[in-house]
Amino acid sequence: MSVTPEQQAEIDALRANPSKTLRAVSEGMEKHLYSAIPVLDHGFVRVIDYMGDDAAICQAARVSYGKGTKSVQNDEGLIRYLMRHWHSTPFEMCELKLHVKLPVFVARQWIRHRTANVNEYSARYSILDREFYIPAREALAAQSVVNNQGRGEVLSDEEAAKVLEILKGDAARCYDHYEEMISDEGQAGLAREMARMNLPANIYTQWYWKVDLHNLLHFLRLRADAHAQYEIRVYAEAICKVVADWVPFAYKAFEDYRMGAVTLSAQMVDALRRMLAGEEVTAETSGMSAREWREFEGMLKG
Amino acid sequence: MSVTPEQQAEIDALRANPSKTLRAVSEGMEKHLYSAIPVLDHGFVRVIDYMGDDAAICQAARVSYGKGTKSVQNDEGLIRYLMRHWHSTPFEMCELKLHVKLPVFVARQWIRHRTANVNEYSARYSILDREFYIPAREALAAQSVVNNQGRGEVLSDEEAAKVLEILKGDAARCYDHYEEMISDEGQAGLAREMARMNLPANIYTQWYWKVDLHNLLHFLRLRADAHAQYEIRVYAEAICKVVADWVPFAYKAFEDYRMGAVTLSAQMVDALRRMLAGEEVTAETSGMSAREWREFEGMLKG
Amino acid sequence: MSVTPEQQAEIDALRANPSKTLRAVSEGMEKHLYSAIPVLDHGFVRVIDYMGDDAAICQAARVSYGKGTKSVQNDEGLIRYLMRHWHSTPFEMCELKLHVKLPVFVARQWIRHRTANVNEYSARYSILDREFYIPAREALAAQSVVNNQGRGEVLSDEEAAKVLEILKGDAARCYDHYEEMISDEGQAGLAREMARMNLPANIYTQWYWKVDLHNLLHFLRLRADAHAQYEIRVYAEAICKVVADWVPFAYKAFEDYRMGAVTLSAQMVDALRRMLAGEEVTAETSGMSAREWREFEGMLKG
Amino acid sequence: MSVTPEQQAEIDALRANPSKTLRAVSEGMEKHLYSAIPVLDHGFVRVIDYMGDDAAICQAARVSYGKGTKSVQNDEGLIRYLMRHWHSTPFEMCELKLHVKLPVFVARQWIRHRTANVNEYSARYSILDREFYIPAREALAAQSVVNNQGRGEVLSDEEAAKVLEILKGDAARCYDHYEEMISDEGQAGLAREMARMNLPANIYTQWYWKVDLHNLLHFLRLRADAHAQYEIRVYAEAICKVVADWVPFAYKAFEDYRMGAVTLSAQMVDALRRMLAGEEVTAETSGMSAREWREFEGMLKG
Repeated sequence: MSVTPEQQAEIDALRANPSKTLRAVSEGMEKHLYSAIPVLDHGFVRVIDYMGDDAAICQAARVSYGKGTKSVQNDEGLIRYLMRHWHSTPFEMCELKLHVKLPVFVARQWIRHRTANVNEYSARYSILDREFYIPAREALAAQSVVNNQGRGEVLSDEEAAKVLEILKGDAARCYDHYEEMISDEGQAGLAREMARMNLPANIYTQWYWKVDLHNLLHFLRLRADAHAQYEIRVYAEAICKVVADWVPFAYKAFEDYRMGAVTLSAQMVDALRRMLAGEEVTAETSGMSAREWREFEGMLKG
Repeated sequence: MSVTPEQQAEIDALRANPSKTLRAVSEGMEKHLYSAIPVLDHGFVRVIDYMGDDAAICQAARVSYGKGTKSVQNDEGLIRYLMRHWHSTPFEMCELKLHVKLPVFVARQWIRHRTANVNEYSARYSILDREFYIPAREALAAQSVVNNQGRGEVLSDEEAAKVLEILKGDAARCYDHYEEMISDEGQAGLAREMARMNLPANIYTQWYWKVDLHNLLHFLRLRADAHAQYEIRVYAEAICKVVADWVPFAYKAFEDYRMGAVTLSAQMVDALRRMLAGEEVTAETSGMSAREWREFEGMLKG
Repeated sequence: MSVTPEQQAEIDALRANPSKTLRAVSEGMEKHLYSAIPVLDHGFVRVIDYMGDDAAICQAARVSYGKGTKSVQNDEGLIRYLMRHWHSTPFEMCELKLHVKLPVFVARQWIRHRTANVNEYSARYSILDREFYIPAREALAAQSVVNNQGRGEVLSDEEAAKVLEILKGDAARCYDHYEEMISDEGQAGLAREMARMNLPANIYTQWYWKVDLHNLLHFLRLRADAHAQYEIRVYAEAICKVVADWVPFAYKAFEDYRMGAVTLSAQMVDALRRMLAGEEVTAETSGMSAREWREFEGMLKG
Repeated sequence: MSVTPEQQAEIDALRANPSKTLRAVSEGMEKHLYSAIPVLDHGFVRVIDYMGDDAAICQAARVSYGKGTKSVQNDEGLIRYLMRHWHSTPFEMCELKLHVKLPVFVARQWIRHRTANVNEYSARYSILDREFYIPAREALAAQSVVNNQGRGEVLSDEEAAKVLEILKGDAARCYDHYEEMISDEGQAGLAREMARMNLPANIYTQWYWKVDLHNLLHFLRLRADAHAQYEIRVYAEAICKVVADWVPFAYKAFEDYRMGAVTLSAQMVDALRRMLAGEEVTAETSGMSAREWREFEGMLKG
């Protein structure tokens, strides 16, 4: 379970007391505030605060582009135009603050996105909780044989059982030893900043993460992608749903021009034009490497 | 005048319609929303949106430092501790969005602060207004003789009059020519993106500027400082008042530990300790250069 | 002329004295070091320093991806793979430092790229030179009638002559007045930081600009593009030639996967697949707006 | 041991072949290139590349401040002036690229410094080596009793022996299980991206880390400080020595104006001035909190 009864009571209290504000309000987002969206076995994503909405994107764009932008009749059209033509600054005018609970190995990938603000729970000051990510049976997959990274087939029952036993056993033992080392009963007690080194990467940590919409969409493009590791992808997917409720026009444009879009190289564009003109183009006559040609075929077939 | 009657009507309308929100609300900031604070002769600063308050800084810090932070009894104490010990990430959890109207030469200094989001009025798309910064009589000062940058004595009446005549005349003529070049009456009309090159640096531009509190305070430390150019300092001072209303504890800590603070070099610390121990320390025996010694004396006298 | 005889002598001296180094050396780049590549009427781009080469990109990638990357047989193949799949960090491992002389209105666009280091000539401390960008006759174009930004037809001889007369006359007069105001003969002399406000945006400034290869390529994608303003595009094109000599594999991949590439929206991909399957797709049946359909047709025809 | 004989042979080969370059060369840094400086039990820091030297800092500053800067007679004086007055951009004109091998829990602290470029060894693609940080006997210390973070007394022999046994045993067992899970002998073999979650935070990783001098000094100020965790401090100290050889003037200025400097709050400055004027100032009459007063007394005594 992700949230304790005490935490739920705190969330309920926070949700019970609306205040008045003159700021832009996104009704779709007010729904989400403070509530925990469960992710993985003990993780969650919670919206703590937000700034702006679809209209705020247009407002900023209209400062930049002045009267010219009024030729785009409405907000949705303007947002789609901005997204299609890679105008990033108006999307930076919205901001999101999340509280996330996540396994350390997921946090290590996530933090690589540098254009964000982070406050992580400190294991130098505080004692980590005994909570580890233990994958669901069906998430246990073999190393991919076609891809140096990534997963292939799901493991057999027998192999899966062995893996789960190892993960649970090692997590429990390492945590027991962590507690034993920091205990000050009958001994001095090892410093927390040292004892934490004994904890495996599936232990949960948590942080506040604040990011602007442009950089958030970039994060989602990479991490909600089918090639992302499953354990971070489920967080990205949970955030996608939140963003769809927060800024529906921007999110739809993101789906059409980023997530569902395809980039063709100069060679691919050339091959495509020849194909549309009726020419038979093959891997050999395309000017592409074998690998690129396979990727090109995949794009055309979907 | 900074704001037209139409703009004022728009501001009044925006201020007339509060909505409900579950987010953190800063009452001190709600007062400011949308209203224009006049700066210089035609400029202004307007708060468009904000995220967070003093409590949000503490909330983020307590995620990081967990139970340990509870030993600091209250929010104000915690904020002062964080500021004094250069903990920057909790302050990054607040965000401010401003609409600023400012002369181009001020904008050129301001933009050097890179950790912010900006949407500027585009003179490629749109036509700039005929509004120029013409300094107040008492702001006209001579080049400093003790400092390679900066101002010295105020100009004599006669010299000031000549300067004002030049500034007004050149601004008017350049703008007349700008209009003449872009006009499409009886001619094609030069592209706006080219014609703008004829406009002097005291023409007004405007932008939306969004920044987190940590980076904002860094900006204010440099730009509200006595060594900053007067024309950017007045913007920084206007923003200081806004921040004092928004996050009063953080702003007070900023005054005590940044604006009013003094940094002593290793040599200065050494000299000071010797002085406090009763030793007579001179420029010669201090290990400092003549320049540093002067700065040190200035710090001790205030 | 961009470079004075004194400056040329300095460049020649710098180029006359090679030193020994154990660092990665790009022979293509050594050729460029210190020399000024002329841009516009008085501007230039000079390479001051660089770090890394094509091999350095691969070296960093192989740290990340370990043995797996060896399956990509050679450096060029690896670099193309990294570019195609949007791996940005290995390209960040190369760095370039340029000295650029450019008109202020170009500098104002350029500085919007925030992920770079900049030291600009300060008109608070120093006196600007009397050098203004006066466009070549054939660069003078009318406001575009199909695009709110951008240029259309070249101006008629008569209109062009009038524009040039205005630009030259106003630049000269404003600079004369600038000199008059700061002069300390027979008067105090206005502070430089104030007098500069009288100078139009076509005056030249200069700066040192340092950037990593990933962010440089992003800059070049936007600024060497046909939609960029001519006056910044010529700088970007000059830099493109430098980069092609510095990291030839990376530059070729950039041409194929960025400059010459095309991004299709989800709707475009769908329409394309239907077309390749033999279906007749029209603007009406495509699910695209009229504007997107025109863009799509443009992509297919080239 | 940090470096294998094969790696040492590679380093020797790299160091055997100098090339000619026209770029700025720092002789002090050429000495370090490629060699591994051992840190902790299996870690190291290696200089892979650098850009610039002390003269490059001055060169950039002189672009900014023009002729005015020539009043500071020499490079060292200019660098000290820039450091003392918080001019950051000239220091950004130097760049350093390191190869670092470090325990994961140290990497997690290090990565919080966002203004840097990183390529880390990927445990999704590749198999991690069996190398764990096991602290030296004398580094094993108890939780501090005066500080919520940090270490106090060194552990007793008996307690230390128990801790070392735990750390070694758990590391060995977790790594054995890691290998067992990914093995494809007689089973499918768990995907590497999953199996890594079983590895504790003292396992070694490695990365290429590239950073400009300004941000590097900021990192060193925080991480070479006495309050930093010992395991990251030893890396910072190793880098300090490298920087001292690379840019000796800048490093000396950094020691005097950052590492050895002291910042006094507004209240502290006031108390100090009263003390120097002969007044007896006490905690009660100082306007400081008890905690601040203790810190103030500490600063004055050293």
